[in-house]
Amino acid sequence: MTSDSTQTPTTRLSIMGPQAPPHVSVQSDTDDAIATQVPTAVVYCEGNFGQIDGKTANGLVRHSQAYRILSVIDGTLDGRDSGKVLDGVDNGIPILETLDASIEVAAQIPATLIYGMAPSTGKLSRGDREVVLDAIALGMNIVSGLHEYLGDDPEISAAAHAANVTIRDIRKPRPSKDMRLFDGSVAAVKAIRIAVLGTDCAIGKRTTATVLAAALNAEGIRTILVGTGQTGLMQGAKYGVAMDAVPPQFCCGELERMIVAVSQGEDPDVILIEGQGALSHPAFCTSAFILRGSQPQAVILQHAPKRAHRCDFPAMPMPDPRAEIALIEAFADTRVIGMTINHERMTEADVDTTIEAFSRDLDLPVTDALTRPAAHLIDMVLSAFPRLRPAPLVAAQ
Amino acid sequence: MTSDSTQTPTTRLSIMGPQAPPHVSVQSDTDDAIATQVPTAVVYCEGNFGQIDGKTANGLVRHSQAYRILSVIDGTLDGRDSGKVLDGVDNGIPILETLDASIEVAAQIPATLIYGMAPSTGKLSRGDREVVLDAIALGMNIVSGLHEYLGDDPEISAAAHAANVTIRDIRKPRPSKDMRLFDGSVAAVKAIRIAVLGTDCAIGKRTTATVLAAALNAEGIRTILVGTGQTGLMQGAKYGVAMDAVPPQFCCGELERMIVAVSQGEDPDVILIEGQGALSHPAFCTSAFILRGSQPQAVILQHAPKRAHRCDFPAMPMPDPRAEIALIEAFADTRVIGMTINHERMTEADVDTTIEAFSRDLDLPVTDALTRPAAHLIDMVLSAFPRLRPAPLVAAQ
Repeated sequence: MTSDSTQTPTTRLSIMGPQAPPHVSVQSDTDDAIATQVPTAVVYCEGNFGQIDGKTANGLVRHSQAYRILSVIDGTLDGRDSGKVLDGVDNGIPILETLDASIEVAAQIPATLIYGMAPSTGKLSRGDREVVLDAIALGMNIVSGLHEYLGDDPEISAAAHAANVTIRDIRKPRPSKDMRLFDGSVAAVKAIRIAVLGTDCAIGKRTTATVLAAALNAEGIRTILVGTGQTGLMQGAKYGVAMDAVPPQFCCGELERMIVAVSQGEDPDVILIEGQGALSHPAFCTSAFILRGSQPQAVILQHAPKRAHRCDFPAMPMPDPRAEIALIEAFADTRVIGMTINHERMTEADVDTTIEAFSRDLDLPVTDALTRPAAHLIDMVLSAFPRLRPAPLVAAQ
Repeated sequence: MTSDSTQTPTTRLSIMGPQAPPHVSVQSDTDDAIATQVPTAVVYCEGNFGQIDGKTANGLVRHSQAYRILSVIDGTLDGRDSGKVLDGVDNGIPILETLDASIEVAAQIPATLIYGMAPSTGKLSRGDREVVLDAIALGMNIVSGLHEYLGDDPEISAAAHAANVTIRDIRKPRPSKDMRLFDGSVAAVKAIRIAVLGTDCAIGKRTTATVLAAALNAEGIRTILVGTGQTGLMQGAKYGVAMDAVPPQFCCGELERMIVAVSQGEDPDVILIEGQGALSHPAFCTSAFILRGSQPQAVILQHAPKRAHRCDFPAMPMPDPRAEIALIEAFADTRVIGMTINHERMTEADVDTTIEAFSRDLDLPVTDALTRPAAHLIDMVLSAFPRLRPAPLVAAQ
């Protein structure tokens, strides 16, 4: 989710403060406990930090369990604080101009270079290639979410071999002989399954799902989030499938396998499933597989009221949320239980007005996962599934 | 499409006879002209010929432009004629027990072994592997539509290298760096686009689309069929994408690229697009990408009225065609202009009754592409798109 300077720091802090679940606290990422357990990393995001195509980097500086993020490389924002740029609040992770600068500041060579951009083309530019090769020459492991697998690139692969470093291609699927087809076994899963879908790409589905998972867990409702994109997997999601890299024939089956594994391994009350793209999107409708593979009882729809057109597609207007809800409910045997908004380009007053207007028009609970109390989000789920309500009742407001 | 012995040969011959378009005539496959141009091939389909998982072999003996099919290997049907087994009419392509027998009958080593099964698992069994290795040792090239790429299998790859033969993995996509995203350029294509979708896998979508393409071309309505599965590509389709092997992020874009290429290269009146699975199918909903990527103005729905459950999924009932039509029209800005039936497990009388009943209930044209006059199929399209009607009017019956 991208942010906007019209958001006041105090508003954002409400979710970073006492109500903050451990998973979304930026502070926890620099805790000593974590520092000693996970590898250090620099996130490369030249020209894109804080923007939509930098969503992998944006997600990593907000939340990372698998890597300790030391700095971000983006020459266009040299010297800025990444938290300040993103959310208006310093997080102590600097943005630097070059790989050399990131090493100088760290006073050591970081263990990992994470390629932190998710361009819609999924491809590596020439300049980016040089940075990757430099990092390899310095002995850094590489993590990439590009569709072009760096491990399959002869030049990069040879360099990595020579330098004895690893290349982790997040999007590279398992060998197809190990993948499985959908077989309906998800129907036996006891946990309530809720998919967080959206009206566009890069609109905050993962962020809302992360906040909701943490909020439900804080209430004692055992919740597991299943990631379906490369950012969630890089952040260290225990359960996930990079759906965009799985052959369509196995998409439903691989997601089902993951849901069943979560059920068997964790026996949670709720399984949240991160959506991808938008079911109505002309280019990216992986949510079709997500609905089929996870067979969710409910859907929460993430929408950006002020977004004029689909991200990266100026000629494609955003859908009306009513139409998206009708489409979702026609496509799958599920129901949309509420809408969450992305407040990009909105003032605090806009958010209030919009929430009120949509609540009335859609006759559904509406909230903003980042700026409104977590109780609103929790109540959206409890209203739909009263049996989840813990013994001490949660207030509706 | 699988067939049934209740079909009489004469009925099937109606489409093989004077009305038969060149592309569906089995006889043309053994014409001398073709014999001198295309490589010979044996189709391996052990235990599955004439059945649903043998649909690649079934399609190849009915129609193949890219290979001249000499025989089929399936020990369970040793000595039978493949045309007789499939459609009740001899086609001169024998079914044999072993690879050795196929060489003996051919009096030469065929140029190609086509792995003619499309098991839903997409995987190679141990026994199948031995046959592939034997064929390679004999100097035969290999063609496979399995998800498990034979060219990536160390043992098979090494054997092919040693024997200097080629392995063609039909499903292997282009390198992802060469794939493109959907960008809406399909909207500028002038041809009318009609997708042939279905209520299940292996239900006859490709067969109906092939018959319709030939029938429209015979009427002077220039029509191109874009294949989306491995069978069509093996048969020699000039334009096609094996959708099941393309990463979801590029599925819409790669199909759009193909539609635009057809438009630019052939400037046809009609582009037919082969569907995959069923939009309602819990496991295989690649048709979602097909609808998004090709943006068809119309859809023809293929349905098997006597099929009790989804192919390979006994626990999943078949959908009602009304529900499938509603789903398709809710999911995409298109309309279903007619239904075609697969007559499996139906008598001639059943077909008549069913066509009449569905025509009335759905208020749509309904026909069977294989047993009813091609004029019915053509009229389905002309009723929806009168501007396609050629100068000499086509009779409605």
